[in-house]
Amino acid sequence: MTQPLPMVAESLQGLYGPEARLCPCANEKLTLVFSQTRAFDLVELEQLLEAVGWSRRPVRRVRKALTNSLLKVGLWRHDPRVPRLIGFARCTGDGVFEATVWDVAVHPIYQGGGLGRQMMDYVLDALREMGTERVSLFADPGVVSFYQRQGWELEPQQHRCGFWYSS
Amino acid sequence: MTQPLPMVAESLQGLYGPEARLCPCANEKLTLVFSQTRAFDLVELEQLLEAVGWSRRPVRRVRKALTNSLLKVGLWRHDPRVPRLIGFARCTGDGVFEATVWDVAVHPIYQGGGLGRQMMDYVLDALREMGTERVSLFADPGVVSFYQRQGWELEPQQHRCGFWYSS
Repeated sequence: MTQPLPMVAESLQGLYGPEARLCPCANEKLTLVFSQTRAFDLVELEQLLEAVGWSRRPVRRVRKALTNSLLKVGLWRHDPRVPRLIGFARCTGDGVFEATVWDVAVHPIYQGGGLGRQMMDYVLDALREMGTERVSLFADPGVVSFYQRQGWELEPQQHRCGFWYSS
Repeated sequence: MTQPLPMVAESLQGLYGPEARLCPCANEKLTLVFSQTRAFDLVELEQLLEAVGWSRRPVRRVRKALTNSLLKVGLWRHDPRVPRLIGFARCTGDGVFEATVWDVAVHPIYQGGGLGRQMMDYVLDALREMGTERVSLFADPGVVSFYQRQGWELEPQQHRCGFWYSS
């Protein structure tokens, strides 16, 4: 991302925090805001992830996972009374050498307008600002081209990804 | 791992912490200890990683990365005056849904005797105790079979791994 996103107006900083940024949006009627500090309603978060096809997870475990995450980003549709969570991304990592992106989601109603790309740009910019050297992710076949178009390298030097399941 | 490793004798807990475990070793003259709490001399740690072929990293950044890591494991060759770090592994993650293993190293002098396998068993056991559901790692071609033999699934459901570099 070459240009930083515009800051939100001071009047919105109470809702989204002083570091919040406006997310570009073709629809003039929408005000969309990236925030790393606005607290999530965990039921709303799980509803968003379920809307993109993931299984619901116990709220207690989601709370603990968020606490232990390096970066959490909410994309909010602004409303002065009830902001709505329409996008989300989460990273784990050490903030220095490695970060891994999980849980990237844009609500289906808002897909197709480039918000997924905006979210990934925002996440990578935030991680770069932290000083993280390398970012990794696991892509299922349906989203591989989405990430490749943005400059992600798939399996550089023939790296393979391995998983182990505790169950 | 079906049987927990034996605890270290109380006389060694000052050096390695109360949770330290003995690592099985064919050589009776060696006492090897897994510890999650014994502090690392960061120069010694970087020398170990360099001995297995990795570039040296600035100590200040290593210190920050360790602070932000979910799990750090040292494998120590016991000596009552100067314990030596002969193995290491590090994980990032949220401790609930996801953990990622990085920096797995056994000093070349001690390779070939199954210590790498012991280290991975210890790491997975520690992550399971934390309640982590899934563990991931990136394997270069030379170690893929090492992980496959231990039950790791490579690219389940055709997941691909992607990397992005900040430079």
